[in-house]
Amino acid sequence: MEACGEEAQVKLLGGNISPFVLRVRIALALKGIDYEFIEENMQNKSHLLLQSNPVNKKIPVLIHNGKPVCESMIIVQYIDEAWDTKAPVLMPKDPYDRAIARFWAAFVDDKLLPCLRGVFKGQGEQQQKALEESGASFLLLEEALRTSHCFSGKPYFGGDEIGFLDIALGGMLAFVKALEKVTNLVLIDQEKMPLLSTWMNRFCEADGVKDVMPDPAKLQEFISAIRVRFTSPPAAN
Amino acid sequence: MEACGEEAQVKLLGGNISPFVLRVRIALALKGIDYEFIEENMQNKSHLLLQSNPVNKKIPVLIHNGKPVCESMIIVQYIDEAWDTKAPVLMPKDPYDRAIARFWAAFVDDKLLPCLRGVFKGQGEQQQKALEESGASFLLLEEALRTSHCFSGKPYFGGDEIGFLDIALGGMLAFVKALEKVTNLVLIDQEKMPLLSTWMNRFCEADGVKDVMPDPAKLQEFISAIRVRFTSPPAAN
Repeated sequence: MEACGEEAQVKLLGGNISPFVLRVRIALALKGIDYEFIEENMQNKSHLLLQSNPVNKKIPVLIHNGKPVCESMIIVQYIDEAWDTKAPVLMPKDPYDRAIARFWAAFVDDKLLPCLRGVFKGQGEQQQKALEESGASFLLLEEALRTSHCFSGKPYFGGDEIGFLDIALGGMLAFVKALEKVTNLVLIDQEKMPLLSTWMNRFCEADGVKDVMPDPAKLQEFISAIRVRFTSPPAAN
Repeated sequence: MEACGEEAQVKLLGGNISPFVLRVRIALALKGIDYEFIEENMQNKSHLLLQSNPVNKKIPVLIHNGKPVCESMIIVQYIDEAWDTKAPVLMPKDPYDRAIARFWAAFVDDKLLPCLRGVFKGQGEQQQKALEESGASFLLLEEALRTSHCFSGKPYFGGDEIGFLDIALGGMLAFVKALEKVTNLVLIDQEKMPLLSTWMNRFCEADGVKDVMPDPAKLQEFISAIRVRFTSPPAAN
């Protein structure tokens, strides 16, 4: 069969409430790439998912002309490189700026996300500890926005336009906001993190982002339902 | 002060037995980049390290013309991009091949390394479980070498020359070999993993790699000494 145009051959295996899938949807939307969205049931994974991501068996998977790419930020880089003539360019041009963007994107995945998971799944002291650690991580990002020559004074981490690190962190925002509502906790403190708060509002309202953001009510409902599974009643002592 | 040539301005904060530092040393050696090696005492971290990597406070840190880059595989990519005219080019040219190299490099860090740490730190059943999981991870790499269009039939994961993924996995090899000696366990089974074994021997003997590989006896001594701290005597029951 002949390929019928590059964009017709893009499929995304995903789910509507996954922040990792959202990262990919934002990148595709920003670049204006049409794709077929295939919603996966993670309780009953499709043959296509298992065949496309046999190692991790996770979403998102981007399938471009039949070839699968896995792991959200690897997919975002792939999109940037495979459609390198389409604006916006997501990765900075300068090698040092690229290293800094990669460093903070890894920080989001390796440091911030485990803390957010702790707030999501925990309760009592355990949750309080995760909340403090989340706050410390967000403060480091605030500090980077304030002082790093790469980010300081610019509307986005990517400069004048949304870039790689914006997507890494921005993919989490809907989840963070919903988690704040469900738990009645403050994760991104506007007073302590004015630059991060401003960036967050700007990012969520940006063209290409706002249209793919999940419905807040549905996300809160989902988070509440899942939290019930993790939070058993307190012990009697 | 004037910069006195790009290579004179490269410093590497590291340690002689760290597999993460070794990755960077291999990349620098392959590209033929001169640098000043500054050995860090991780029990008494230098002001330069804390200032250069305030978030993670870890080695390796590459300092290029006064600007620090952290996290081993981010540094390797930085080296490839900042010295992009120096051969060998470590990252494949094709966006899909790049995504595949990044996927397996992430697999090494996120899946294989925790298993190896389990073998290193564990004993008894816990160690046995980590050993089985390490074996399963190495088998997936063997399978990738056998079947992936990116790697199959080529001397290295990077093709004809050592590349990004070779360095990600290859940086661990001295540690893996020393761990096998110290624990009397087989991690890379030559019979079950013939392609991986051949690759391993080829990689360790390659120019630019063999000269920076740590001394096996010293590494074994180090691993034995550290393991004593983790392995307490068995319980009396």
